[in-house]
Amino acid sequence: MNTDATGPAFFDVVLNQRAHRYLSPDAVADSLIEQILTAATHAPSGENAQPWIFVVVRDPVVRGEVGRLVAESWTSGSSDRTAEMVPPWMHREVDHWAREGLATAPVHVVVCVDERLCHEGLWGSSIFPAVQNLLLAASALGLGSLMSTYPVAFTPQLRTMLSLPDHVHPLAVVPLGFPAKALGPPRRIPMQDKTFRERYGEAW
Amino acid sequence: MNTDATGPAFFDVVLNQRAHRYLSPDAVADSLIEQILTAATHAPSGENAQPWIFVVVRDPVVRGEVGRLVAESWTSGSSDRTAEMVPPWMHREVDHWAREGLATAPVHVVVCVDERLCHEGLWGSSIFPAVQNLLLAASALGLGSLMSTYPVAFTPQLRTMLSLPDHVHPLAVVPLGFPAKALGPPRRIPMQDKTFRERYGEAW
Repeated sequence: MNTDATGPAFFDVVLNQRAHRYLSPDAVADSLIEQILTAATHAPSGENAQPWIFVVVRDPVVRGEVGRLVAESWTSGSSDRTAEMVPPWMHREVDHWAREGLATAPVHVVVCVDERLCHEGLWGSSIFPAVQNLLLAASALGLGSLMSTYPVAFTPQLRTMLSLPDHVHPLAVVPLGFPAKALGPPRRIPMQDKTFRERYGEAW
Repeated sequence: MNTDATGPAFFDVVLNQRAHRYLSPDAVADSLIEQILTAATHAPSGENAQPWIFVVVRDPVVRGEVGRLVAESWTSGSSDRTAEMVPPWMHREVDHWAREGLATAPVHVVVCVDERLCHEGLWGSSIFPAVQNLLLAASALGLGSLMSTYPVAFTPQLRTMLSLPDHVHPLAVVPLGFPAKALGPPRRIPMQDKTFRERYGEAW
């Protein structure tokens, strides 16, 4: 066992994870980011290749530009399309996030894959478990975050701003900060309604 | 907060997750599977669409056939290719897993996506966080498992054996069982060697 471990109870963290779209601009210390990214690097990956790369962005110019790109895309079409697919309360939250919440977050963790270490068919199964560890660890430490792949639509701009070489591809941009809004437990469909026994169609 | 939560400390679970390739054939109770899949369903997903579907397979005929397909593929080429890419100790472990470990696992959880609930571009970021929760929860409860996308190569056969409709696509097959071999902590490259500050190339 790794012996320097601690924190709240595992299921308390996992069953209460939420997407935090309202974050305080207060700074997040390096020591917290190090605990969070250590958790991320303990995720599984294909052939244990550990193909993840994290770029921790605090520069307000870069965060502002990422926020501006997302806000522009959101207000010029995505907002209307999303409104058709999610309940109004969620649309209001995403609207806040896209217009200002993302840029306000004091840290953006840009999670990338190194294509030299991982076949493209395994990018998802080798990177998103690490992102999930990142989100859970943030939650365990009292920080807010959310899974966001939206900014990946702006990969050419990210590549320029972050000096990403051609073999490094951003797959998620995770905003991190202290929550500015308390959230209740997540709303989920019970596992019994998502699970079949032996074959599709046979109720659990 | 969800209040029925418990379990070991969060970071103890996350920092000690391992891929278990040696599993006991002993049965795993429904109650454990329910806790594990409840954790899985608390992962984030695009627009909170919760596009996951779990098929819990205990039928030895189906598990045996999945194992046979993987073993055949492994011994007719994949083994040699993998030997070039991973250290000998890992190749021995994967070899055991592919030849008999997978079929021996008393439960296979086939994790699928419902394409009606999720654009294909979001499958990875909407399903693999749930798989990671599944793996972590199994570990928290003393079970062994591993992330496995290998059997997805046999989607046509899985579709037939599990009666999967056309809109449901398997993305991972996770074997679950009690560990038959004690494992030490995972081997990982430190986060400092995977993290850059502000832009690629600037050391953390």
